Amino acid sequence: MKTRLTYGMVGGDLKAFIGDVHRKAIGFDTRAILVAGCFSSDEKLGKETAEAYKVDPSRTYKDYREMAEKEAVREDKIDWVSICTPNFLHYEIAKTFLEKGINVVCEKPLCFTLEEAEELERLAKEKNLVFAITYTYTGYTMVKVAREMIKKGKIGKIININVEYAQDWLVDSLNPENQKATSLSVWRSDPKYSGISNCIGDIGTHAENIVHYLTGLEIKKLVCTTDNYGMALDLNANMIIEYENGVRGALWCSQVACSHLNGLVVRIYGDKGSLIWRQEHPDYLEYTPIGGAPELMARGAGYTKTYDAGNLSRLPVGHPEGLIVAFANIYRNVITTILKKENNEPLTEADTDFQNVSNGVDGVRFIHKAIESSQKGCWVNYKD
Amino acid sequence: MKTRLTYGMVGGDLKAFIGDVHRKAIGFDTRAILVAGCFSSDEKLGKETAEAYKVDPSRTYKDYREMAEKEAVREDKIDWVSICTPNFLHYEIAKTFLEKGINVVCEKPLCFTLEEAEELERLAKEKNLVFAITYTYTGYTMVKVAREMIKKGKIGKIININVEYAQDWLVDSLNPENQKATSLSVWRSDPKYSGISNCIGDIGTHAENIVHYLTGLEIKKLVCTTDNYGMALDLNANMIIEYENGVRGALWCSQVACSHLNGLVVRIYGDKGSLIWRQEHPDYLEYTPIGGAPELMARGAGYTKTYDAGNLSRLPVGHPEGLIVAFANIYRNVITTILKKENNEPLTEADTDFQNVSNGVDGVRFIHKAIESSQKGCWVNYKD
Amino acid sequence: MKTRLTYGMVGGDLKAFIGDVHRKAIGFDTRAILVAGCFSSDEKLGKETAEAYKVDPSRTYKDYREMAEKEAVREDKIDWVSICTPNFLHYEIAKTFLEKGINVVCEKPLCFTLEEAEELERLAKEKNLVFAITYTYTGYTMVKVAREMIKKGKIGKIININVEYAQDWLVDSLNPENQKATSLSVWRSDPKYSGISNCIGDIGTHAENIVHYLTGLEIKKLVCTTDNYGMALDLNANMIIEYENGVRGALWCSQVACSHLNGLVVRIYGDKGSLIWRQEHPDYLEYTPIGGAPELMARGAGYTKTYDAGNLSRLPVGHPEGLIVAFANIYRNVITTILKKENNEPLTEADTDFQNVSNGVDGVRFIHKAIESSQKGCWVNYKD
Amino acid sequence: MKTRLTYGMVGGDLKAFIGDVHRKAIGFDTRAILVAGCFSSDEKLGKETAEAYKVDPSRTYKDYREMAEKEAVREDKIDWVSICTPNFLHYEIAKTFLEKGINVVCEKPLCFTLEEAEELERLAKEKNLVFAITYTYTGYTMVKVAREMIKKGKIGKIININVEYAQDWLVDSLNPENQKATSLSVWRSDPKYSGISNCIGDIGTHAENIVHYLTGLEIKKLVCTTDNYGMALDLNANMIIEYENGVRGALWCSQVACSHLNGLVVRIYGDKGSLIWRQEHPDYLEYTPIGGAPELMARGAGYTKTYDAGNLSRLPVGHPEGLIVAFANIYRNVITTILKKENNEPLTEADTDFQNVSNGVDGVRFIHKAIESSQKGCWVNYKD
Repeated sequence: MKTRLTYGMVGGDLKAFIGDVHRKAIGFDTRAILVAGCFSSDEKLGKETAEAYKVDPSRTYKDYREMAEKEAVREDKIDWVSICTPNFLHYEIAKTFLEKGINVVCEKPLCFTLEEAEELERLAKEKNLVFAITYTYTGYTMVKVAREMIKKGKIGKIININVEYAQDWLVDSLNPENQKATSLSVWRSDPKYSGISNCIGDIGTHAENIVHYLTGLEIKKLVCTTDNYGMALDLNANMIIEYENGVRGALWCSQVACSHLNGLVVRIYGDKGSLIWRQEHPDYLEYTPIGGAPELMARGAGYTKTYDAGNLSRLPVGHPEGLIVAFANIYRNVITTILKKENNEPLTEADTDFQNVSNGVDGVRFIHKAIESSQKGCWVNYKD
Repeated sequence: MKTRLTYGMVGGDLKAFIGDVHRKAIGFDTRAILVAGCFSSDEKLGKETAEAYKVDPSRTYKDYREMAEKEAVREDKIDWVSICTPNFLHYEIAKTFLEKGINVVCEKPLCFTLEEAEELERLAKEKNLVFAITYTYTGYTMVKVAREMIKKGKIGKIININVEYAQDWLVDSLNPENQKATSLSVWRSDPKYSGISNCIGDIGTHAENIVHYLTGLEIKKLVCTTDNYGMALDLNANMIIEYENGVRGALWCSQVACSHLNGLVVRIYGDKGSLIWRQEHPDYLEYTPIGGAPELMARGAGYTKTYDAGNLSRLPVGHPEGLIVAFANIYRNVITTILKKENNEPLTEADTDFQNVSNGVDGVRFIHKAIESSQKGCWVNYKD
Repeated sequence: MKTRLTYGMVGGDLKAFIGDVHRKAIGFDTRAILVAGCFSSDEKLGKETAEAYKVDPSRTYKDYREMAEKEAVREDKIDWVSICTPNFLHYEIAKTFLEKGINVVCEKPLCFTLEEAEELERLAKEKNLVFAITYTYTGYTMVKVAREMIKKGKIGKIININVEYAQDWLVDSLNPENQKATSLSVWRSDPKYSGISNCIGDIGTHAENIVHYLTGLEIKKLVCTTDNYGMALDLNANMIIEYENGVRGALWCSQVACSHLNGLVVRIYGDKGSLIWRQEHPDYLEYTPIGGAPELMARGAGYTKTYDAGNLSRLPVGHPEGLIVAFANIYRNVITTILKKENNEPLTEADTDFQNVSNGVDGVRFIHKAIESSQKGCWVNYKD
Repeated sequence: MKTRLTYGMVGGDLKAFIGDVHRKAIGFDTRAILVAGCFSSDEKLGKETAEAYKVDPSRTYKDYREMAEKEAVREDKIDWVSICTPNFLHYEIAKTFLEKGINVVCEKPLCFTLEEAEELERLAKEKNLVFAITYTYTGYTMVKVAREMIKKGKIGKIININVEYAQDWLVDSLNPENQKATSLSVWRSDPKYSGISNCIGDIGTHAENIVHYLTGLEIKKLVCTTDNYGMALDLNANMIIEYENGVRGALWCSQVACSHLNGLVVRIYGDKGSLIWRQEHPDYLEYTPIGGAPELMARGAGYTKTYDAGNLSRLPVGHPEGLIVAFANIYRNVITTILKKENNEPLTEADTDFQNVSNGVDGVRFIHKAIESSQKGCWVNYKD
């Protein structure tokens, strides 16, 4: 029986931020080893990255197509590939590895068009492959606790939702003389690299995703305004969303909101209580039962561990876990799922608790519908 | 030269909450004395109230019409009347006193229909009378400081607005077996007493008003959803609002949001900074300049007093002022304005810094437009 | 049966801050009227103050001795006198009125020496007079709720106490060039006006008092350091206190602690839970039961009203009450007590829930013992 | 030139919490590889741990003495050993490796007696070896920023210090029927395993250490009370500390304080401002300049990066880093220091920014002096 996996990576050179997060997260449980990679279009940098992680030169590739092809036919081929490239390359790379029968873990957003997204979803299903999307915030223990509390009826029937994801890092770009200087903001505003949306695509989708993850509610329709402030793509958006069962809610995302750093805040209101989770203080969850005082639940505390998800906590109570642990929690389930599949063991709901290609498709649809509503200036149905 | 005023009150018997707040607030600066009243439809209670405040029996009235008539012809007639009755009586009472040439201070909302509101506005203008509406929150010092900071360009050009006013006190009414018990929630849901809206009319208007007070921005159009949860009137509403100059923002109000007590929170984002004010901790204002750390400004602190409005503070820094002081700040300006008018002194902008009948008309329009959008399921223009 | 009282005031002219707070607080429940006063050593200002409050010229006095004498022999003499003068005058004035058989309400600290304090205590007892000390913070509803919770065993046996009262307003005086400019800080540092201590006397006593009020624990011994930073009197002090039953705790007070405005924070730890109250947000109380999450209790909320003290709340939940309401809560009980005594009605524990001359004596003893420990550089027993 | 190190570990089997934290932290920068270990007294567990980390069986030892001996003579001997055993074993193990000329990284507390501590200090000096102590909290970026701000005079001359480290996890042990059940609390209270102190030794030393790290101030004398509540060792302690230059401060540590999880909070007050850091939200630092509003500085923000230490941040602003990153920051410097020493490169102050054996000696002295003061019931001089 297999107890350890090997993986490859596309993107994620030594200078890239997110690839490093993936590697650390994967390494958390020492159940998977990096053995292959196509780390960079810069050959020297790719080589250095391979060396730093002791990836054999024979499995260090210059081209991801070559990598997929060669890995696919090895006896000891990689169990999955993690795609950490810029967004506009996700589709081609993911498709290539799926076609070769290799499981995929991909950064969000999945890709740019709904057609591409659905093609990837179809491919993964046909080939019976694991296709995980790393929606980071679903990895936090207290998010999982909130989800379990909702499922168990602790806040009753959901009656209103309020989610926001506000940052301030692009506010400088509103200042004309700064626009040229900020190469990142230029990149963010170029449809070639960002698709049809910047802000909604980058962070709005996280907000949409976490609500879905927590509540399971599907969107029925939405109305949206976007603000470009003279740039090619959106930097700010306000939405009202109607979910199934008539539940309504608001979603706000912004990259130009001074005072907010990485301010994802999700608030779910039920007729028996409410739950509030704030990304910047992820180890805490505010629970207010109807008629009671707000309770600040902490990851790792005994009362939190009365929930199954509370036991996913890795560090003692009061010691901040942070982003990498959240990522590690996602990979923990991905690795368990791939291991069990390879060992022909049955999968539990807990094993597959990670966002997959279908959630990725939802994310792409969400972006498109929001932009459509903004452009048409009216409500749009979600599944038309 | 007159240095002290007299006033009368309609409503506000000893058992009523808000009348008492008005009296304490008026008494704060010892420049006005209660001398007449029609305090209650319950004669005995009215008499007791008069006695408690040493109002002469000869000026204690059973009927507000009689009061208006008799006071109007006295040499020492009241300088204004404060109307503290249930909302559905505001229109008739205000009209009666205006017609007799008596200044009016009225609780919000002004009245139920736009026609009535505009009639009162016209009457006040024709008669050149002061007509103040007690939008409580505009009385807080730090709200005034925020307004001054915005005017002075501290946050630059406004680019996004987010305001919410969430309470939880009607969430019990969502529980079928509780609905009969809660007489207040029944009253709140009866159009006879609440007009066409409950939640938007009661608290949504405060949210709309404070944004207007802070920014001066007029609404161009809005889209709104309301949630009645099986009751006659709305208990929750989500809106996207477009202001003049294309500025957008979100507004959420709710009376069924567990964890929120009297949660008015207003956040104004500019291209040079942001300001956040929270009603439950009114002595503080969070200011974040672009590129800087959030600063928690405190009422009474030296740096706050570099703003004119900062000097309106009444208690030393760190000693909470609370609701009654906010009310007293509104009355301070109302009394100054009436005094100066009677003394033929020129009025400054600071003197007339209170919400007036035109703001009351705006409030009524806002309620109607929001409900219209919700019913039609689309954006509605504001001034059509 | 008497239902309304009359009172006089010494000090508290129109320009003084605290006298005004007393008058507003007394007026809150409309059960007492200001009829006599010796408001100021400045005759003109005293007269203006009298006029503003419609105090008859015949009962406006230039000298508090004359006031005590003349009021004492009137049929309609004042029911009590409120002393709002600078601290160094408290003793003489209080003594004068007590000797004439008039009830006293006095600002803290009671006086400067333990001998004087005990003399006043003895006098009040002999004459069977009410002698209240306005330790402001004991008036806050949530402080009273905390006290009731402790009495009812909600946090079990007390095992540790941590109280601090930190302000920053004298930090400027540490800067040599500022010292002359700050007349107030000079006054604060002059033993003639402040007694043997500045910081402990001004705010440390509040910290000591609130712990005693909440827990009922008497001090057995203490060790203290004081920091004068080159001034005549202390600006900062650290203490360890041992209470009866061996309970220990820390007390810190400072007037030079940047970031603190009026930062009285008291934390009581028991073997079954803990309670934290913060003066700057007085409507909230943090309660953590053993094994549970911290609960943020709010004044006015239903669950708070399950405690008797919770029902003392005056404004609806979520509307800040502030300092004046706290003061009004103190006077509510003082007035009830005086009324009942005059009507020969039995007094309940709730009626006499205000700090009295004995608490004032405790306060003076505390100051002396703390300074003694600091000077001797060792622990000192409290009751030696 | 050497660019990568190898290390060994004593303790830290797969089931142990802290060993895993060390390994992840060391692995963060991919500059050191685990190649040897004596992981557990349980042979099977030790073997499993070796396998999980691909440590060669030939370098997996049953006895740490054997490990030190054999590694010392290898050409490719480990560059350092990380000691992650229970505290009572630190001394013997550290001594053994130092004697063999191997650099040491050791968990705190260093050991139990001052004699042992000073012996280790002497040994390290004699042999010119690196001896780091992992005082976790000194690894957090914002702690380093605070330290740099203090050094650069941002808060002026230090005038008062307040540090507390409060937890609640042993409060259950105060309940008689629970005492037997809690094996951990029994262990904590057994002098054999904990030395002369439980609470001060476990967390009080962290509080003492972080103050020293931030301010550089040496302790001159202290007065302390400890509370055992019937157990063999202390569970709670209050101290007043006098530092050199006459600066005073308070220190409170507790393992029985309900509401506190891992509540290390350090507050440094200067005559030009103050700094507050809270371990549970380690990415933030509250800075208040004299005369200004409190500013909530965030790790990763541009204004934080104006400080050298601010650039140590690893994740983008707003993404929590957490405990493991703090540990990784400590090891980053340890590894750099060892590398540079081996390469004969000059060391900068930044390179050696980690707590070393001398700080470990200080920690042991602190425990002994605090217990001495508590037992004698008086102030004790620190360096006597």
